[in-house]
Amino acid sequence: MVDPAAPLPALADLQPRGAFAARHIGPRTDDTAAMLAAVGQPSLAALVDAAVPEVVRDRSALDLPAAQGEAEVLAALRERAARNEVFTSMIGLGYSGTTTPAVIQRTILENPAWYTAYTPYQPEISQGRLEALINFQTTVADLTGLPVAGASMLDESTAAAEAMTLVRRAGKAKPDAVFVVDADTLPQTLAVLQTRAEPLGITLHVADLTAGWPTDLPEAGAFGVLLAYPGASGAVRDHRALTAAAHEAGAAVVVAADLLALTLVEAPGEWGADVACGTTQRFGVPMGYGGPHAGYLSVREGLARQLPGRLVGVSVDADGDVAYRLALQTREQHIRREKATSNICTAQVLLAVIAGAYAVYHGPEGLAAIAARTHRSATTLAGWLRAGGVDVVHEHFFDTVLAAVPGRAVDVVAAAAERRINLRLVDADTVAVACDETTSVDTLREVAAAFGVEPGGLDDVTDALPAAVRRSTPYLTHPVFSAHRSETAMLRYLRSLSDKDLALDRTMIPLGSCTMKLNAATEMAAITWPEFAGLHPFAPVEQARGYAQLIDELCTGLAEITGYAAVSVQPNAGSQGEFAGLLAIRGYHHSRGDVQRDVCLIPSSAHGTNAASAVMAGMRVVVVACDDQGNVDVADLRAKVSQHADRLAALMITYPSTHGVFETAVGDICAAVHDAGGQVYVDGANLNALVGLARPGRFGSDVSHLNLHKTFCIPHGGGGPGVGPIGVREHLVPFLPGHPLVETGGTGPAVAGAPFGSAGILPISWAYLRLMGPDGLTRATEHAILAANYVAARLREHYPVLYTGAEGLVAHECILDIRGITKATGVTNDDIAKRLVDYGFHAPTMSFPVNGTLMVEPTESEDLGEIDRFVDAMIAIRGEIARVESGEFDATDNPLRNAPHTLAMLARDWDKPYSRETAVYPVRALVGRSYLSPVRRIDGAYGDRNLVCSCPSPEAFEEVAPEAGAVPAPHGDPEGVGETETAGVEREVVAQA
Amino acid sequence: MVDPAAPLPALADLQPRGAFAARHIGPRTDDTAAMLAAVGQPSLAALVDAAVPEVVRDRSALDLPAAQGEAEVLAALRERAARNEVFTSMIGLGYSGTTTPAVIQRTILENPAWYTAYTPYQPEISQGRLEALINFQTTVADLTGLPVAGASMLDESTAAAEAMTLVRRAGKAKPDAVFVVDADTLPQTLAVLQTRAEPLGITLHVADLTAGWPTDLPEAGAFGVLLAYPGASGAVRDHRALTAAAHEAGAAVVVAADLLALTLVEAPGEWGADVACGTTQRFGVPMGYGGPHAGYLSVREGLARQLPGRLVGVSVDADGDVAYRLALQTREQHIRREKATSNICTAQVLLAVIAGAYAVYHGPEGLAAIAARTHRSATTLAGWLRAGGVDVVHEHFFDTVLAAVPGRAVDVVAAAAERRINLRLVDADTVAVACDETTSVDTLREVAAAFGVEPGGLDDVTDALPAAVRRSTPYLTHPVFSAHRSETAMLRYLRSLSDKDLALDRTMIPLGSCTMKLNAATEMAAITWPEFAGLHPFAPVEQARGYAQLIDELCTGLAEITGYAAVSVQPNAGSQGEFAGLLAIRGYHHSRGDVQRDVCLIPSSAHGTNAASAVMAGMRVVVVACDDQGNVDVADLRAKVSQHADRLAALMITYPSTHGVFETAVGDICAAVHDAGGQVYVDGANLNALVGLARPGRFGSDVSHLNLHKTFCIPHGGGGPGVGPIGVREHLVPFLPGHPLVETGGTGPAVAGAPFGSAGILPISWAYLRLMGPDGLTRATEHAILAANYVAARLREHYPVLYTGAEGLVAHECILDIRGITKATGVTNDDIAKRLVDYGFHAPTMSFPVNGTLMVEPTESEDLGEIDRFVDAMIAIRGEIARVESGEFDATDNPLRNAPHTLAMLARDWDKPYSRETAVYPVRALVGRSYLSPVRRIDGAYGDRNLVCSCPSPEAFEEVAPEAGAVPAPHGDPEGVGETETAGVEREVVAQA
Repeated sequence: MVDPAAPLPALADLQPRGAFAARHIGPRTDDTAAMLAAVGQPSLAALVDAAVPEVVRDRSALDLPAAQGEAEVLAALRERAARNEVFTSMIGLGYSGTTTPAVIQRTILENPAWYTAYTPYQPEISQGRLEALINFQTTVADLTGLPVAGASMLDESTAAAEAMTLVRRAGKAKPDAVFVVDADTLPQTLAVLQTRAEPLGITLHVADLTAGWPTDLPEAGAFGVLLAYPGASGAVRDHRALTAAAHEAGAAVVVAADLLALTLVEAPGEWGADVACGTTQRFGVPMGYGGPHAGYLSVREGLARQLPGRLVGVSVDADGDVAYRLALQTREQHIRREKATSNICTAQVLLAVIAGAYAVYHGPEGLAAIAARTHRSATTLAGWLRAGGVDVVHEHFFDTVLAAVPGRAVDVVAAAAERRINLRLVDADTVAVACDETTSVDTLREVAAAFGVEPGGLDDVTDALPAAVRRSTPYLTHPVFSAHRSETAMLRYLRSLSDKDLALDRTMIPLGSCTMKLNAATEMAAITWPEFAGLHPFAPVEQARGYAQLIDELCTGLAEITGYAAVSVQPNAGSQGEFAGLLAIRGYHHSRGDVQRDVCLIPSSAHGTNAASAVMAGMRVVVVACDDQGNVDVADLRAKVSQHADRLAALMITYPSTHGVFETAVGDICAAVHDAGGQVYVDGANLNALVGLARPGRFGSDVSHLNLHKTFCIPHGGGGPGVGPIGVREHLVPFLPGHPLVETGGTGPAVAGAPFGSAGILPISWAYLRLMGPDGLTRATEHAILAANYVAARLREHYPVLYTGAEGLVAHECILDIRGITKATGVTNDDIAKRLVDYGFHAPTMSFPVNGTLMVEPTESEDLGEIDRFVDAMIAIRGEIARVESGEFDATDNPLRNAPHTLAMLARDWDKPYSRETAVYPVRALVGRSYLSPVRRIDGAYGDRNLVCSCPSPEAFEEVAPEAGAVPAPHGDPEGVGETETAGVEREVVAQA
Repeated sequence: MVDPAAPLPALADLQPRGAFAARHIGPRTDDTAAMLAAVGQPSLAALVDAAVPEVVRDRSALDLPAAQGEAEVLAALRERAARNEVFTSMIGLGYSGTTTPAVIQRTILENPAWYTAYTPYQPEISQGRLEALINFQTTVADLTGLPVAGASMLDESTAAAEAMTLVRRAGKAKPDAVFVVDADTLPQTLAVLQTRAEPLGITLHVADLTAGWPTDLPEAGAFGVLLAYPGASGAVRDHRALTAAAHEAGAAVVVAADLLALTLVEAPGEWGADVACGTTQRFGVPMGYGGPHAGYLSVREGLARQLPGRLVGVSVDADGDVAYRLALQTREQHIRREKATSNICTAQVLLAVIAGAYAVYHGPEGLAAIAARTHRSATTLAGWLRAGGVDVVHEHFFDTVLAAVPGRAVDVVAAAAERRINLRLVDADTVAVACDETTSVDTLREVAAAFGVEPGGLDDVTDALPAAVRRSTPYLTHPVFSAHRSETAMLRYLRSLSDKDLALDRTMIPLGSCTMKLNAATEMAAITWPEFAGLHPFAPVEQARGYAQLIDELCTGLAEITGYAAVSVQPNAGSQGEFAGLLAIRGYHHSRGDVQRDVCLIPSSAHGTNAASAVMAGMRVVVVACDDQGNVDVADLRAKVSQHADRLAALMITYPSTHGVFETAVGDICAAVHDAGGQVYVDGANLNALVGLARPGRFGSDVSHLNLHKTFCIPHGGGGPGVGPIGVREHLVPFLPGHPLVETGGTGPAVAGAPFGSAGILPISWAYLRLMGPDGLTRATEHAILAANYVAARLREHYPVLYTGAEGLVAHECILDIRGITKATGVTNDDIAKRLVDYGFHAPTMSFPVNGTLMVEPTESEDLGEIDRFVDAMIAIRGEIARVESGEFDATDNPLRNAPHTLAMLARDWDKPYSRETAVYPVRALVGRSYLSPVRRIDGAYGDRNLVCSCPSPEAFEEVAPEAGAVPAPHGDPEGVGETETAGVEREVVAQA
């Protein structure tokens, strides 16, 4: 209370500066003192001095704008928003106007229950979003006519690149066979294909395919072809003969297809395509100046195991009930590392959820009606243009009218711009007009006026689709696509899904390496404003001045924080950042004639994506050993450096290490690599331990990617979107990603379809920097380090803490070693993870970077109460383990092995040798709980043996799977190294997002 | 699927008109057909023809704008928003700038889990919002220093009026004792006091109290006094001597106090006040051009049972665990009717929840810091003004500086307006400047410039609060006010609360008379836009042109729908609408010299608020009987009319009747009243059965109130906000509510503090009208009637349907008679209601209008799947009742009597004679359920005997209440007439919201 005798402070001392940091950071002042006492450090400053080696420490203050209040930051964002101009964009090229149904926007996109969720590696507490992703996969599979679709790709262009490499490795073509690309492919897709092909030694053969299969192929032939359906020009072609010819020639057929068009034209799978790819943006996801959107990839039977990225499949739980999980995890980069088929990890889950929900909301007739209206808008406009004497180039098109206006194209586009409509200037004589769901009759009339023709009537009934490929096959016949059509029903369906999941709005998610910190409501506010959400990525730059300012400010801030000369935000995931960073190194070496430099040193503890990215960048991976403290084995490193000195391209390390330790040798390590002519790549996954304390660009690194979805508050979205910008030192600046259509500041190869990647969510990180200011950011880092050390200090006597640095301190996460417990009791880290669900928590990271361990990262955002609840739960679980050890609990029929427990278990006859209360109320803090896992432990292997990746029939929920019905055996070999499917799941949780 | 051979329709036929109506209305076309078949009607038109008597039927089409799509309506709202200008308002007078914490805005105000909830009459499934309201009550009680605070009032002005009548009925003063009002009271409060005093024969004695207790009082003295703290002028006075003098003179002391100021000045309760009242708007609730905000009222010990409106209290459940419920229900108007202490029913729950959450978020130090900054802003400005030669009138003030600028006031206000700042023009020589949480130093400098003075420094430390009343007592010491300070913790706390509750986002809420229909996300979107949320109600009208247009369009639409000449939106609840409508009738009679007309005829089946409102309007209630069909007994009516002909003021009826029946005699009834010189008031509670089919203003009514929170989609917010506009025929237009400060179009007495009531939420109803269009609105009504008749048709063989009209049809709701079941089996409607929770549903309306019944109103928004699940649940429950009847289930220890069942029950030893699965999985549809009631059945009487109305101590959750620990006895006397407390609860659910 205020002392009534004391005068109030002066106004100068009452300004609420830094108020947000106190909301972002969990512990109150008293809590911080208590935590420091537990850690045995007198102050935060002392803790940091003790934990962070002087060799990396940078004591200069961050030169960033001072912290502002939430209202001020929103006002500043509004200023920037106001500098964007939202024209009606009819540019097309893979980005369309769309309406996000309000119930979807409010209930998913603006709801922390959805956007703060983590990737569903713990499937029991992720059934809601897994079902939402199954809806997405079913939508893609049905519309493309190909049976297996993944749970989203980063964008259409990278999906096309993944398709290219997929068909190459799946086929048996000669090594120098080429990849044929339809000349009517989107320009940004062509650029990304080129980026991805070159390091792998793939030659692209771009050809006009209207005349048939190319006759000028090299002798080795083609391993595949990419067909556009419709093309960038808008033309819709009947590709059936071409497909037959390609197959005849031994080439696989990939089709880049517009999902909305596929409601009206026959599915690629029906006419023989092997793979389909594209975007689902127009299914309710705003353009957002380029992203994020969910790309898609679907494949024919026989290619499912080649599919990169995540795939949701149907399996069963311990009761034999239907349950969803990620399928076929053994394909992925965190297990296969340099043998991986792709480095994709974080995908676009939140956007895929929205696109799938859009399909549920509209259903097949609704989508068909939208497609019909879109097509009819285009044919109506085409009719008016023809009547007005303008030549329409293509006979067959879906949504895009290509108009020949010899010598007038610039004028037509300008006339449209005066009406606040963006058309596409194809060349001086040609203009393209793309229609979409939002195209109104008024807009069509304005467009006609821009062409100088009179609008006619709305009675056109001449279709412009090739009659031979008008669609006749059904789609979205599953009941889910017709059950939730009223807004009320949709709202309840979405709530029922999110209620099945645990996200940050209900529990801490202490995932080591994943930095599950607060995603503040103020940070999230701007992304749905029309001025940010409504821009086409290829809109004239003078319409995007607000974005330009915001991106520039964000990049400047990130460069200041990391000590780099420049930053590019184009990579739309951490893995893409890795790839872009390695390409910059490659480009640098090549520019100096060092084309032989292709060795990439990677420590054994690295994120699996590091190795996969290196391979994609045309490098050979050489693994460097770690010592028994978890640090890079410097002797081995020096040996490998000298062994490969003339071919050394790069070293990739994570700092602080993936073991959660600040290695002191990092300076020597970087120097050794530089001395040999190599470049140092510091993986920014653990940057949350460095901000304000150390800068990779100053302590020896040449390039890093950051994860804005870790350190800089973009929510994980259940597995994406992510943003993986890269920062580089001065000499690498020219090699930052460029773009074929838009000036990005870089001249290197494009790695994503959009010039600024997932621009639409950059306001989140921008707001975080403004809200925190330099002091707040530094304090956040200090608290992240404190929280991890507090957990380590409290749990050390119950679980061995595996690695520590100076004074026994960890960095921002700590590894609990479960291997001894497993050996002594049979209780695995999986059992502990599932048991934590019974205690109301999301599990820590499992078996990364060391198998048989749990890695805990509390982040600065968790308050002491929640951290203590977690620690108390872990201690209580250790007590349960002791009861297994003592024989009090049965070795296999105990609360750990049977976890998680469900409401259905409680309600029926109880056959466990412990009580129901022991199962779900093991500690007092759980009194009043409302959440239980909706399913029992899931049998992942069953689902992989019986692969189903689209909505299961309603009857499936009534069947008991023949192999299930009992408690699943403990998963895999906990001492293994990721060769079993289950160990794969355990490792995946840590892959570079 | 589309027929590939058929050409697509023309663009003219593909426009998505009426698309929203198909989202608002639950059943699909096939479902409608199935429902009609069940009802035995060939078409919707036939159903309506059969159900709606020709005497009321109006077949002319509604003259309303055609339906628009959601995007178009949002664009139209943005146009109107853009016509409002959001200046910085420093006008004060009870409305202050405030910042809604983003986490509160997103998690409460924009979250259907909170805003679609109903009033917590079913406390078991309302524990979350009851806890949130306890936080609100504790905040008010602590800050005012008075132990019992209610769960919100409609606004500050009506709270003051309620305080006046409270102290009058609680005291023992002479009948003609006056009520003294501080001359420094807010002008709108003075107006509302006058409105409420006059019909009750109370004389207001407005006096300058700076010189002490008035010496010119009439002989009867004063029964109470209202003191302003601070005053409208900004002055903060030490009222202690005046309070002592008032008490000496036998007058109770009511203090209108600013809650924020109370963090710095001593609480009224500490210096002897009996009652405090005011607003909590500045606790995070946007000004919204006047509302909605939560008013407050708190009282000293001994007055709790006099408190009007809702009061949340602590009680225990069947396990003896702490549980919340509405306390002391026997005070309320739905039970006491014309003997009620107030007609308040719907309050401002959503806003009270926000204000309470704001206190939780900021805590005592945070609130004190905001108050200090606000005060220091004012003293800093005052210092600058004085230094610049401007006289500051008051020595003591909190946030408002009253500046003397002889002859210059208009110029100063104009100069500020040029800087987009609104100051208050007090008179030609005086300007007031009110500071608040959002006042920035820049703004203060602009204000100084407007006064023509130089801004000085920010180092002022001279307090302007009377030293004698600086606060020394603590407040908000309960742990909840310090436990959730980080945004993460706050987010989880709010989620944990909402997870305890059942709202429309998880289940249908089939409450008869309450019309729980869809509150669409698009309808809700605009209310948080700054252009609607940020306006001060007394801002110059040229800044509110968008509001003026929107209000005009809304009123025009409502007048068209109801057949009236004009509509006023000032009443901010249905009960206020009743009062305003009756005042219009009173004003009309008085204007014609018919001052003796004071009899109001009300049927026995009426909403309890009808009678209470009539009394407030100075009328005598004469009850008219109903016949055994539930209709008004026409013979009795005629008798009463002729008995009271010369004194007949009005008849109040509900149409269709509260029995859910379209009475055919309504024409005759209206004519009889008119013939006797009376006016007809048709209560619009059931307007959802009339829109597009019949118009009260054309079938005989003179005035109606509507409930925008029923028929026109404003969400119930857990018990408010509501809007209760009144429509009147031409002769009553002059008597519509006026306002002392703002032109409203009416010249009658003001009934609410703000000129347009809860203007901030009118965009919701405006959007509904635009989205639906005339056809959609009519179709909604048809579907509402269909849904009720479908439920009646399917349930008739299981439960008697009590009243029906022509062809056995009901209107938009149906009454299930449980009395026979209760007699035969002991199972009550309460048991069925609680058992429905186990089935996942919110209960129907209990015991209104007939005791021992359930009234079901499905509304048009429920889809057939949900309706069928409800009907199936009711049938399954009937089967359970049969098992009680047959003796298979124990008469008292059965699943009905023990409902609702909790997770805690399932987990512990089971002592019931039926299985756990019978308890929580009685039907297959519940497989996969995630919700169980968080508490067992609540013992309401225990809480009333042990009244606790603020946050219980943490220890309370560990104690078992001595009287509890067993299943509570069946509540009350199901055959009673509302004299028991429990029966009160049953009846309350139906009171006019």
